Amino acid sequence: MSDWLTSLKTDTPQQGFELAIMLARNAVAYTQPSPEIRERLRYIYAENADSLIATSHVVATHFQTVAAANNYWK
Amino acid sequence: MSDWLTSLKTDTPQQGFELAIMLARNAVAYTQPSPEIRERLRYIYAENADSLIATSHVVATHFQTVAAANNYWK
Amino acid sequence: MSDWLTSLKTDTPQQGFELAIMLARNAVAYTQPSPEIRERLRYIYAENADSLIATSHVVATHFQTVAAANNYWK
Amino acid sequence: MSDWLTSLKTDTPQQGFELAIMLARNAVAYTQPSPEIRERLRYIYAENADSLIATSHVVATHFQTVAAANNYWK
Amino acid sequence: MSDWLTSLKTDTPQQGFELAIMLARNAVAYTQPSPEIRERLRYIYAENADSLIATSHVVATHFQTVAAANNYWK
Amino acid sequence: MSDWLTSLKTDTPQQGFELAIMLARNAVAYTQPSPEIRERLRYIYAENADSLIATSHVVATHFQTVAAANNYWK
Repeated sequence: MSDWLTSLKTDTPQQGFELAIMLARNAVAYTQPSPEIRERLRYIYAENADSLIATSHVVATHFQTVAAANNYWK
Repeated sequence: MSDWLTSLKTDTPQQGFELAIMLARNAVAYTQPSPEIRERLRYIYAENADSLIATSHVVATHFQTVAAANNYWK
Repeated sequence: MSDWLTSLKTDTPQQGFELAIMLARNAVAYTQPSPEIRERLRYIYAENADSLIATSHVVATHFQTVAAANNYWK
Repeated sequence: MSDWLTSLKTDTPQQGFELAIMLARNAVAYTQPSPEIRERLRYIYAENADSLIATSHVVATHFQTVAAANNYWK
Repeated sequence: MSDWLTSLKTDTPQQGFELAIMLARNAVAYTQPSPEIRERLRYIYAENADSLIATSHVVATHFQTVAAANNYWK
Repeated sequence: MSDWLTSLKTDTPQQGFELAIMLARNAVAYTQPSPEIRERLRYIYAENADSLIATSHVVATHFQTVAAANNYWK
């Protein structure tokens, strides 16, 4: 993949949260490189409660990292 | 999404816990933007023990972050 | 919900563990506010090994937070 | 429950690991207080690979806490 | 296995993220040493949304470690 | 069990990773003490993608602990 992650610093907590979402998604892209297959899977799991909760858990784990990198935006 | 997360600081641990719940829910909203579909899914997982436990786990992960950001309200 | 979490400090590790259990349960209560439904679900998951293990994992995650907040009761 | 957790300090990493196992089990006991039911469930999940892996994950989470409490036995 | 992990230091966050992916995969290789079986399984889970989310969670956990090792590339 | 864990210190990150794998496996051995049953289960989960991913997650959690104990081998 080309450069997509040059820093964990963000201006605001919300941008940090959105970075966490990107990290969660990009890990999937490394395992399933086809955008078409990922798009098809997205339609399925976006209507499945347990998949959405699991996705939210991955974001939470990355948000811990991003928040620490930004000293919790204190 | 418009601005919804400007700080991780809260006055009390309980407000921090409620912020953790909001973080868990908003990650879902980024993946499933339709409020109608989320409302429909909510009826399902709110009556499923394993889904509720999984939700509680996501909250626990975010609460770690929020608690650290507030120096554990010491 | 009324005030239920005013501090993460506890006198002993065991009280901290019991606080972690309360945190795990209260996150569920925010998602499923009906005590009757929660009581009904409890009968089901309390006899399911995988649900009990998942519950124990949530407690473990909260116990990390509570232990850190108490400087590990050193 | 009577007093069962008075300190997170242990003499060795192995004792800390065994404390982590006890923490994982005791969280289950708070949710399912019947020793007979827990014993029956144990026979089931002790022969199920996924249940054993999930149990191992809970122990890993508690071991993080116990290891930090002991400054990693440095 | 021969030497494959001599340092957790990386030049950039992205290289750290790719190291996290390698760590997640190599843990699997220790448990399932056959490259043929792993390749076969890969075709299955790379088209399964829940498996991909679970994989992403493992990467997130390792990325916490790698990011801390690099002081978040500050 | 006899002494099997006397220190979390390792010379290299790779040895730390292999210690994390041992920790993940030994937690299972405390719950299922029979080597024959564990061997039988291993044949099953080593060919199941989701079980392998779950195993990898447990290793990742222990690797966080071991890496911290070694100050990330800096």
